[in-house]
Amino acid sequence: MPVKAILISIGDEILYGQTLDTNSHWMSKALDYIGIQVVKKITVGDVKEEIFIALEEAKKSGSIILLSGGLGPTNDDITKISLVEYFNTRLVRNEKVLQHIQNIFTMKGKELMESHEKQADLPANCTPIINTVGTASGMWFEFEGKVLVAMPGVPFEMIQLMNEGILPKLKQQFLTDVIYHRMIRTIGIGESSLALIIKEWEEQLPKNIKLAYLPTMGAVKLRLTTSGEIEEVKQKLQHEIDTLLPLIDTYVYGLDDESIEEAIGRMLKECGYKLAIAESCTGGYFSHKITSVAGSSAWFKGAIVPYSNELKRDQLGVAQEILEKHGAVSEPVVLALAKNVRKLFHCDVGVSISGIAGPGGGSKEKPIGTVWIGYSDKNRTVAKKFQFVKGREIIIKYSVIAALNMIRMNLAKN
Amino acid sequence: MPVKAILISIGDEILYGQTLDTNSHWMSKALDYIGIQVVKKITVGDVKEEIFIALEEAKKSGSIILLSGGLGPTNDDITKISLVEYFNTRLVRNEKVLQHIQNIFTMKGKELMESHEKQADLPANCTPIINTVGTASGMWFEFEGKVLVAMPGVPFEMIQLMNEGILPKLKQQFLTDVIYHRMIRTIGIGESSLALIIKEWEEQLPKNIKLAYLPTMGAVKLRLTTSGEIEEVKQKLQHEIDTLLPLIDTYVYGLDDESIEEAIGRMLKECGYKLAIAESCTGGYFSHKITSVAGSSAWFKGAIVPYSNELKRDQLGVAQEILEKHGAVSEPVVLALAKNVRKLFHCDVGVSISGIAGPGGGSKEKPIGTVWIGYSDKNRTVAKKFQFVKGREIIIKYSVIAALNMIRMNLAKN
Repeated sequence: MPVKAILISIGDEILYGQTLDTNSHWMSKALDYIGIQVVKKITVGDVKEEIFIALEEAKKSGSIILLSGGLGPTNDDITKISLVEYFNTRLVRNEKVLQHIQNIFTMKGKELMESHEKQADLPANCTPIINTVGTASGMWFEFEGKVLVAMPGVPFEMIQLMNEGILPKLKQQFLTDVIYHRMIRTIGIGESSLALIIKEWEEQLPKNIKLAYLPTMGAVKLRLTTSGEIEEVKQKLQHEIDTLLPLIDTYVYGLDDESIEEAIGRMLKECGYKLAIAESCTGGYFSHKITSVAGSSAWFKGAIVPYSNELKRDQLGVAQEILEKHGAVSEPVVLALAKNVRKLFHCDVGVSISGIAGPGGGSKEKPIGTVWIGYSDKNRTVAKKFQFVKGREIIIKYSVIAALNMIRMNLAKN
Repeated sequence: MPVKAILISIGDEILYGQTLDTNSHWMSKALDYIGIQVVKKITVGDVKEEIFIALEEAKKSGSIILLSGGLGPTNDDITKISLVEYFNTRLVRNEKVLQHIQNIFTMKGKELMESHEKQADLPANCTPIINTVGTASGMWFEFEGKVLVAMPGVPFEMIQLMNEGILPKLKQQFLTDVIYHRMIRTIGIGESSLALIIKEWEEQLPKNIKLAYLPTMGAVKLRLTTSGEIEEVKQKLQHEIDTLLPLIDTYVYGLDDESIEEAIGRMLKECGYKLAIAESCTGGYFSHKITSVAGSSAWFKGAIVPYSNELKRDQLGVAQEILEKHGAVSEPVVLALAKNVRKLFHCDVGVSISGIAGPGGGSKEKPIGTVWIGYSDKNRTVAKKFQFVKGREIIIKYSVIAALNMIRMNLAKN
């Protein structure tokens, strides 16, 4: 059983939605990495009684409590005095910490104020952890067989304290098994259908390997988790992945950390292919996803966003008759767009999207969410129709996922 | 005293740090906006006992409990069965919800599976809230004078359920005083500089009008909040806005709900102008922002994303000598791009972006974050250089905000 930790974030600004709590996300990842399991997170405001309640709740769930926020020099920061009261102790000036704070101010050429000196007053029962990038020390408490560590909420100060002081101390004190994850990334299949295909495989999984389905828009990640001796665990998970992959290989685009746009980039690069895009209803979002990957100029030459029929005709050579007869959202139009943009930009692969993102423009034959996607390379020019559910933003995002998957599937055929 | 709410997020993936919990941040903002105070957030894993404990803790702190996550159709999602046990009730198939799920599958042309049908089985004591973009319904429970609402953790499903079902119902049930907000939206000035300019105005604000600075990337929103009798309150806020606007009119692009991309669309439409874009380092994100506004085809004809120099030359007529002499990230290149894309697409306004988004490609003369933006209409063709801080994603987003602001400032000159 891994050691269990609870994270407490303190700050009104998180509760009111003015600050997104990225600290506890960072801590979760860092603890997970060294094999400490976060079992709960609690966020409360800068209110003493709420902090006490959170501490009592946290104590019930694990051995390590990491508390961040509310350690600044101003009056609204009350974490330190709350801890003094909680432990029924008093503040003692720590000369080493004071010296450190004085050094910071000397270095900056600024004058030390009383409120800053007070940052060196720490609860008598804590071991201070020096904050090399700020004035608020980390505070390490041991009580009732548990460890409680308080640290400031400023992200780079928290990260410095965790990396240099807290994580090494936790590792030393709590010898634990390693928690180990692997991720299998799928696209083009829903959670339920996937579950059905891998049902038997899932049922035969050893009890100490946990499977989680993590669905995101248009894609599902399968996460395997286990713990134990690192080399043995690695082999066990690899064995399960090797058994799983043949069952779902048409849906798997990558393993572990690789995103779908990174995977497509990798595949295009491996083929030595350059990509050209003509995207209408997605209005630039497809190109944005492709270029969100650093180094994408190695496989992406560029795009046209022909948001008007005039540009589809004049810039991309779609015949006026085709536009009039079939409409812009149609098979012949995306076929022409994909092929023509590929040739125009001297690329190996051309992809096109034309659809009705709404809220206007839908009809009975072509309701909102109707999207045609075209693909063209030297071997084939093909198109596929999709019907997405409503919502402009959703239709745009699903269309791009579908287009990325279309590249993947067609590259696999070459 | 405002009504108090507690948010419970359920999901191992949040505790392990694989998913950043943006849901509870969104909910915090949405609740704050209508005058409901979030006093606590709790995150637990997909473990029944932990969910029970969180519910007991939440009950102590407020009247509204919003629970998200763990409502998918697979076995690791246990929120629904946990609630059935918590309320000592049973699952009942809801025919209306089933019909809705069937409609989704019919529209997609996919077959309904048993696991999907089960999504229509809901706790007997809940009122379902239809999820128009997915299969997991929202569930509204009333017990011991409190309201508990469970909803899926998929962000866009949660947002749809909150906006269309849950927030209106909460308002109706809990809010007596009308809370009234007005928003003044600025761009091109930082929070501190803005505060300095409006210091005197801020100091004379009546005590019952609250001012909040809401900084987002490259823009600061000023929110005025008060409550009371609606007509009187409306007049009071309008009076304050009328006093404020002359102080900061060069920075204000809009009021209330209008985003910068909507404001730009409105301005272009008012002028009867059509926009053409040539964007390189932003890779389609500028066009995406423009087309994220419904109806944008009325002012946007299209874009080229010339991610390679070849396309800047062949498609947009930038002379090879200019590219070689000045480099792609330079004043003459963005001037040519803006002018040429305007003419090529027969538009009234052409805007271009060329910069170094990194992580590669920086130099001493042109470090990462150097971005040139060009603007061209019949009266002028101009360019401006920006230097943004590091981070590929940040540079792309700041560049687009700067380009939008450049359109605003130049349209004002005509």
